[in-house]
This record gives sequence, structure tokens and C-alpha cells, in this order.
Amino acid sequence: MKLANLIGERFKEKPADCIVDSHALMLRGGYMKYVASGIYSQHVPLRRISRKIEQIIREEMDKIGGQEVLFPVVLPASLWEESGRFQSVGSELIRFKDRNDSPMVLGMTHEEAAVALVREYANSYAKYPFMIYQIQTKFRDEARPRAGLIRVREFTMKDAYSFHTSQEDLERYYQICYDAYNRIFARCGIPEVVTVKSDSGMMGGNVSHEYMLLTPIGEDSIAICSECDYRANMEAAENIIDNSDYSSEEMKPLEMVATPEQKTIEDVAAFLNSDAQHSCKAVVYRKNMTDELVIVFLRGDVEVNETKLTNYIGEDIHPAVLTEDDNVCAGYIGPMNLACKATVVFDSSLKGTRNICTGANKEGYHYVGFNIERDCGSVQYVDVGKILEGGICPKCGKKSITVQRGIEVGNIFQLGTKYTKSMNMQYTDKDGNLQYPIMGCYGIGVGRMAASICEKYHDDYGPIWPMAVAPWQVHLCCIRADDANCKSIADNLYTTFQEKGVEIIYDDRDVRPGVMFSDSDLLGVPIRVVVSPRNLAEGIVEISTRDKSVSVKVKVDDVLETVQSLIKEML
Amino acid sequence: MKLANLIGERFKEKPADCIVDSHALMLRGGYMKYVASGIYSQHVPLRRISRKIEQIIREEMDKIGGQEVLFPVVLPASLWEESGRFQSVGSELIRFKDRNDSPMVLGMTHEEAAVALVREYANSYAKYPFMIYQIQTKFRDEARPRAGLIRVREFTMKDAYSFHTSQEDLERYYQICYDAYNRIFARCGIPEVVTVKSDSGMMGGNVSHEYMLLTPIGEDSIAICSECDYRANMEAAENIIDNSDYSSEEMKPLEMVATPEQKTIEDVAAFLNSDAQHSCKAVVYRKNMTDELVIVFLRGDVEVNETKLTNYIGEDIHPAVLTEDDNVCAGYIGPMNLACKATVVFDSSLKGTRNICTGANKEGYHYVGFNIERDCGSVQYVDVGKILEGGICPKCGKKSITVQRGIEVGNIFQLGTKYTKSMNMQYTDKDGNLQYPIMGCYGIGVGRMAASICEKYHDDYGPIWPMAVAPWQVHLCCIRADDANCKSIADNLYTTFQEKGVEIIYDDRDVRPGVMFSDSDLLGVPIRVVVSPRNLAEGIVEISTRDKSVSVKVKVDDVLETVQSLIKEML
Repeated sequence: MKLANLIGERFKEKPADCIVDSHALMLRGGYMKYVASGIYSQHVPLRRISRKIEQIIREEMDKIGGQEVLFPVVLPASLWEESGRFQSVGSELIRFKDRNDSPMVLGMTHEEAAVALVREYANSYAKYPFMIYQIQTKFRDEARPRAGLIRVREFTMKDAYSFHTSQEDLERYYQICYDAYNRIFARCGIPEVVTVKSDSGMMGGNVSHEYMLLTPIGEDSIAICSECDYRANMEAAENIIDNSDYSSEEMKPLEMVATPEQKTIEDVAAFLNSDAQHSCKAVVYRKNMTDELVIVFLRGDVEVNETKLTNYIGEDIHPAVLTEDDNVCAGYIGPMNLACKATVVFDSSLKGTRNICTGANKEGYHYVGFNIERDCGSVQYVDVGKILEGGICPKCGKKSITVQRGIEVGNIFQLGTKYTKSMNMQYTDKDGNLQYPIMGCYGIGVGRMAASICEKYHDDYGPIWPMAVAPWQVHLCCIRADDANCKSIADNLYTTFQEKGVEIIYDDRDVRPGVMFSDSDLLGVPIRVVVSPRNLAEGIVEISTRDKSVSVKVKVDDVLETVQSLIKEML
Repeated sequence: MKLANLIGERFKEKPADCIVDSHALMLRGGYMKYVASGIYSQHVPLRRISRKIEQIIREEMDKIGGQEVLFPVVLPASLWEESGRFQSVGSELIRFKDRNDSPMVLGMTHEEAAVALVREYANSYAKYPFMIYQIQTKFRDEARPRAGLIRVREFTMKDAYSFHTSQEDLERYYQICYDAYNRIFARCGIPEVVTVKSDSGMMGGNVSHEYMLLTPIGEDSIAICSECDYRANMEAAENIIDNSDYSSEEMKPLEMVATPEQKTIEDVAAFLNSDAQHSCKAVVYRKNMTDELVIVFLRGDVEVNETKLTNYIGEDIHPAVLTEDDNVCAGYIGPMNLACKATVVFDSSLKGTRNICTGANKEGYHYVGFNIERDCGSVQYVDVGKILEGGICPKCGKKSITVQRGIEVGNIFQLGTKYTKSMNMQYTDKDGNLQYPIMGCYGIGVGRMAASICEKYHDDYGPIWPMAVAPWQVHLCCIRADDANCKSIADNLYTTFQEKGVEIIYDDRDVRPGVMFSDSDLLGVPIRVVVSPRNLAEGIVEISTRDKSVSVKVKVDDVLETVQSLIKEML
């Protein structure tokens, strides 16, 4: 199409509220337009990019036996009541009533709809395994939409659901999906995407992976081992603490000491001429539902990983603000003689410590010489600590953990029977017994993928789209539309490219070359063809790539062939 | 793909609640599944049909310069407040609040979103004309969803919006869209679709057309002239009444007569030895907003067309239930001496009548010898009557109106400046003056199109999909999967067809031929290829079409070529 007709504003100034480059560039380039917080309309270039990404996803899903279906955007709340998520999911789920006062929700994920679609069909083991998927609009009422398309409220997502008759079969298929996802990211031009072990969160199930594009603007923190292939979302990463040093210490007697006005772990350690590693600290939470206290004891230098703690507790929690009614001696909490009613958790960082200090549950006093198993009896340790930069790799055991940031561009989950059990989906196995199928689910956000690609591949002037997802393949500029020869040769090239099925955007506006080139940079089309009177005087046309790797001048007659072979190379 | 793997139940029995064939067949064939009233999930065959329809629409929209964009499903209510529709549209618009208590709506049409997308961009006459469109999920909370995909609450729609600087340019483009729509229906296999003049309803604007597939199960009534090309939705059709017969009558004096207990127009006419044509009846409505009465006077044999009446009044109305406070003499209402406060409308069917009877606004009395302009003075007549079978064609003037039923599969509107004015979208014209652009809008429902095609082309056993929109092009049946030769030849054909890019569904299940064929009928694939041991004994394979127009036996080696040329013919 002609650039002169392309709707959407392009502009130079970075919008003030853009904290990431992809957001700024996609607004500046007329890719999308703000409608409401986390809600955008898509202009032509983004629509074209999205459709290409969708098609790549579709092909890879079809290749692994996926069957494309379509679930509703608006779902009856009753479906979500069956699974229990109508109650358990927070305000990110939009709930409303229709004209007949029936409660409805906006689909933010479709496990329930998937089970409902197949639960009558898949009533015999012979129908398994199978995978269904859709590419569709979803709405999740995020508390803090940010960074343009990175975190929105309304988005297009491919979500897939597989059904199996055994855990082994799920694992076999999970691996197939895992590989298909890697192909998708590679084909979309971001082979750099890495997989990390993740927390399953509200999805349920145990094993899950996220696909992360590592970038400083990412929202997720990822623990990565520099010595082996271990990678995990901080939310899920195991925290290994080496307490072997303590084993050389002789156990000292337990002794209560006055520590007046020393409330923080640092204060107490300094006061006692010790360090945080030689202390046991308490962090206090409250359960959202019951207000019951949860007291976590950790080694003084370790932080709580709230996701791991929530998963262990099995329900949502929040940091506690203590009151007199709690009967807790704030600042002096320790594992011994706790007077309050609370769920007590011992982090595994305490295992093997000796002679540390801890609160005495008495205003102004701590214990020193605390030896946890001697003084508290047998203790069940739980890993609820946060892994840190320089920490120990849970896989290779070296102190080689680095923490990087990433954007989650996809995820895969082994769901187990959470949904089939709660929604009573059963099949008859070979022996005539009723069984619950085992599910997996697999998601990719299309818009976030587009933004991630832009985030990874851009310069100050615009995105540098990989050929496979670029809005157009070729950007043709006619530098002097008022020069009859220049215009006629450019027009001819435009027609020829179109006839050959090359996706082309043609700029024949009567504007300065500077405007033309900055617009071209903003559209980020991989190949630029420039027709100018000066070059035509020598019978040549300039061809260059947006990533600057190629810049050649070829005869007018050779333009088509050169461009076609460039496209082939870049696809 | 293999039919054995295709998810979805197929069954023989017509579901009890299906009143139209397409609904029953699309449930029986595993095309879709009920989720909630007017909300369905799409199974694979329907998804494939929909995507083909969408692609045909996309190609035709692109061909007339359409630019594909994507608007949000969830829109801020503020956009709809700008246009005034947040208030004026009824409960079919879903309204809810997000987590921050901001009022939102679910997009049921996107005029507001379209204006918002381009109002900054299109600030100069040089940017015009242009057309943007999207293909997207919409939700309209219909009071009475019915007939499967014919009237749903959630649906996929192509909606397009064009912007112009003059009415002439809008009309020029409107004609281009009009033609594109005809091409779309022809390509989708229903060239029978006719255009009818329609009422613009809540969309605003004046000229509009609907594309109707004529079928007895249609929801719309259409007035069609059998003598000329006049066609209009009953809601919009002009009602021509020929009162020339009256002109030969001498005016009689007005006389009040007792008509005790005679309340209906038929009673009164019979009592007076007259007929309905010689009477003036009253029909009473109330304005929804203000409760104010609207009294319509018509010739006794004419019915009110409430759509035309609503358009004339300019706001929603409902039939009135009269109370004492209204000060209206129910059963005896007439145009003279009306004591109540009401908007009075004279239907054009009264024009030219003489010596008719009408209520005297006095319990138990009517007037006879009523001559409207003599007795009431100058009267403004408005056409609010319903056209009837055998009525007069507004175009050719013959009594040749027939009333048929149709499904509305598309519509086009000349919107004028309703939205650009209310939402303050302006551009600078050539002379530097600010102007409001003129809009057109153009819709097609994808699911309703699929159902309409099925409604038009099916038999008792299933749909007969036109090649261009069929879920697959070829349905291959291996009649005896346990016969090694039969299976191997069928397998080879399956592979060959796939390699050649033919869209094929392959049934190699170990089931009776009857089951195979009834499933095949339900899927409605245009070409069926049957491989059976009996035919293979003679080295042949059966090829037939779903519409029974072709049934041939060809050598195994000729199957591919025969099928490919059939596909070409049928596309």
C-alpha cells in the first residue's frame, strides 16, 4: 500500500509516560493508540505483525496435532464456579451480570471452557490424547498495566489445552509443546528466548515453564546459573544455603540476654558482636481469608520468597501489621515459648546452624547460643527463602547464580487433574473404570510477543522487525515524486513488486527525504529501496537493510531479483 | 486431518430446542457447542468455515482500500458518553465497572472507537477519504437469542468505517462497498442475497441497506415488489394508500352517534353498517423517557409500523396502558376535542378519506361523517403505517407488494456526521475552515453468514458447504480399514492429497460404512472419495459430490487429477 494513505500518526518526540523503548516506538510509529489504561487499538502495522505472529503460532500448533477452536470471550460464571476459580481469583477477573441478572465473567484464561467443550466428547480412553487451542481476545483486569503492550488488560492470546490418560503421556506431549514453542520463538525472530522453571500460580499443577526474553526492562527476575543450564523464575527458584561452616562449632549453652531497644536483626547482631548469619529472624504474615498469623523463621541474612511461602501455606497471605490482640512481642519474636496462635514455618536456611541468636518472645531480650534442634526438638524445614545473586545453583552446586530480568512471552503448565476433577470430566479406561483425564496448558501472548521483538531489536529511530513478522517486507521510497522519471521508475517497481507478491509499502509523498527516512525507520521494514534522481543518473537504485548489514547499489533491472533473494535470506 | 481425531460429538437426533435446520445440523455435526444463551464455543469445522469467510471478507475489503485495524472488545464508557449512546442504547449494551470503578462497556459496534482512533490523524482534508475495518468478537446482550448462530449474543463481525469530506464522496464509496458486499456473498456461495432499503435504527444516518438471504426462517419481513426491483425491510418500507375512491363521495355532515359498548374498530364499523376502511382509529403509545402519550390516528384497516413511528418521534416508545390520570376516553378516542396532553400523529393513510367514523372522546359515542381536513383544519400527515401483502409498490405504483422473510447477513449505512459531530472530530478543509467528516459504516456477521449458508444449502442429512467456505475440500473414506490393500491405497491418497495442498479430512476408522457416510454428510464436505475393497477389485475409486451433481468411478491413478479439477470447478 501507499504510505500516504496509511492511517495513524507518526511523530518524533518520545511520549512522556513511556518507560520502555518498545512502548515509545510503537506509539511514535503509529502501531497502536491508547484507548484506556492497558487497552489499545491496533493500527495497520501492528495488525499485520500480529497476524503474522498468529499464523506462525497456528502452523506450529497444527504441526503438533493441535485443533483450532474458539471459546467465548464472555462466559457464564457458573463455569468458573465449577472449578472454584470464581471465588479464588481476585479482581483481575471481570464479573458482571447480563440483562437477565445471570452472573458472567470475561475470559482471562479458558481451562473451564476447554473442559466444558470436550467433557462429553472425550468419554472413552480411545479419544485421547488430544490438544485444542484458540487464538483470541482475553481481558485480565491487571492492577498495574504498564510498558505498552508488555502488560495490558486486553490482549490476544494463543491458549492451548491438552488432555491425557497418564502422567507419562502428558510429559511426552509437554516436551513436544516445549519444542514447538522454541520453534515459534525462533521463527518469530527471537531465538534468544530461554525457558525457566516457574511457579504455577493460580493455574494449579506442578511442573511449569516460562519462556523468557532476557532484557533489563523485564518484569520477572530470573535466577540463572553461569556454570550450568539451570534457569528458574525467582518465584520458583530453590534457595540453597550452605551451613557446613557451622559444623566445626561446639554447641554453646542457651542463654537469655538483655538487648534493650535492639529490634532489627542488624541492630541485635551488632549489639551482640555477631552477624546476621548467626541469627534467626522472624517475618510475620497474615492469611487473607482467616487473618490467622503466619510466622516465618529464617537465617538472618535470607529474605522471604512470598510466592513459595504462599504455595506452601496454600492460600493468599499479606505482611501482618501486629496489634496487641495478637499477643506477639514484636521485635523479639523467636521460636521458643511463642504465646500466640500462628502457623510457624522454619525456612531451610536454618538447617545446620549453631549458636545463633533469636528473639526470646520477651520485650528487650534475645537468646544467644540457640541450637535449633537441641532447643526446639525436631523441626520440619521448608524452602521459602529468596535466591540471591552469587547464590548456590540448585543443579550444579556452584556459587554461580546470577539474577537477570526477563519478559515472559509464553508459558507451559502441567495442570494435572485440577480442572477435570473439579468439573467432573471423566472417561472410561480400558478396564471400564472411570478416570479423570490429565491436562496440560500452553499460552503465548501475541501482543507481548510483538513488543518483546521490538524491545530486543530496535535502535533510537525505530524497531528493526525480523522479516518473518515485519509489517511489510520492502519499504520503497521515491525521493522526488515531482521528478517524472524518478516517479515513473518507482511506480513501476511498486507495481512489479506487488505482482510478484512482495509485501511492499510505497512512499511517494512529496516530502523531504529526512521525513521519508525517519518514517521508514519507525516502520522498521527490513528492506529499504530508495529511488532518487541522483542515483538514477547512473542507472542505479539503493537497497539497504534496516539492520544496516546490507547496503548496495544495483541497476534498476536488478532490483527485483536482489530484493527477492534478500527476502529469502532473511526469512 | 484424520476424522478419528476430530474432537466434537456428532449425532443423529435433532435437538429438541432447535427451530431452524442450520441450528440443528450445526449441533448434530459437531460444529459448535452451547455455552450459555446465545453464546457458543466453536469446534474445528466451524472455526475453519469462519476463517475462510473472514479471509474472503478481508480480501474484498483490502481490494477497496480498506485498512485492517483492531479495536478493543472492552471500551471505556466515556467514549460512548461522547456519542450519547451510553445513555440512548438499552440493555443490549453490557455495562460494568473495572477494578478502579471506571465504567466500561463491551463493544457491540465500534463507531466511537473508530472515531477515537483517527480523530487526531485525520485533521486535514488531504487525509481523506479512507476506510478502516476490523474482524473481531462483539457482544450484544440480545433479549431473545434464537436459532443457533442466526441470533446470538457473542459473535464475530467485520465492521468497517469510512470517512469522507463530502456527501458525494460518501455516496461514491458507498456504492463501491455495496458492490464489494455482493462479491463477498457470491464468493461465499450465496449469490442469492438481495439488498433491501432498511431502517438505520440506533446507528443514526439516513440511507442504509441490508443484505438479506430470503428464507422462511428469517427474522426480518421484507416488502418485495413482484413487478419492479423495489425491496425494503418492512421496518423502512413506505406504506402507500390509495384513497382516490373517496373522491367521488360528497362530504356528509359531522354527526355524533351513540355506539354503546362498541369499542374495537371492527365492532364500531359493524354497528354502523360500515367497514374498517371508513373509519379513523387511534393507537396509543407512551414515550419511554417521559411517559408522555403519543396518539396515532390511522385509517381503520392500517397497522402502525412502530419503527417508522419511533424514528418520527425521535425516541423510544412502548404501547401505552391507559390510566384515569391520562384523561383519555379509551375505546372512543378521536382527533377532535382531545382533552389529554399528547403528541398526535396522523398517518398518511387518512389523507383523502371522506365521511369516515371516529371516536368522539366521549364514553359511548363516535362521530360519523368525519372529514378530516374540514373538521380538524390543516393536518400534517406522516407515514407510520405498515405495508401489507398486496400493497402498492412505492416505486412502480402497482399493487404488487409481496412480503417475504429473510436473514440479514450484512448491512451498510450512510451515517453522516452523527458521530463526528458528537465526538468533535474535525478537519481543516482546503480553505482553512474546520469541518466535520461524513461517515459510512459497513457490517457483516461471520457466524450468521455461516449459518445462513447452511440454511440455504443443506438436506436432511447435513449441510452442503460451497467449496469456498467448506471446512475441508475432500472427505476421504476408507471403507475397510482392516483390509490391508484398501487401507494402504487410502493412506497413499491421503498423503498425496496433503502433499498437493488439498484440504482433506480422512476417515480410516473401523466403523460401519453407514456411520462413515452419515458423519460425512454432517460435515458437508463438497467432494467425497470412497475407497472400498469391492471397487478396488476393479481398480477404481468412487468420487462424488455432496450436492449429488457428480458421481463417478475413476482409476486409482486418476483420483488426484479428477478431484483437483473438480475443486477448481467448484471454487
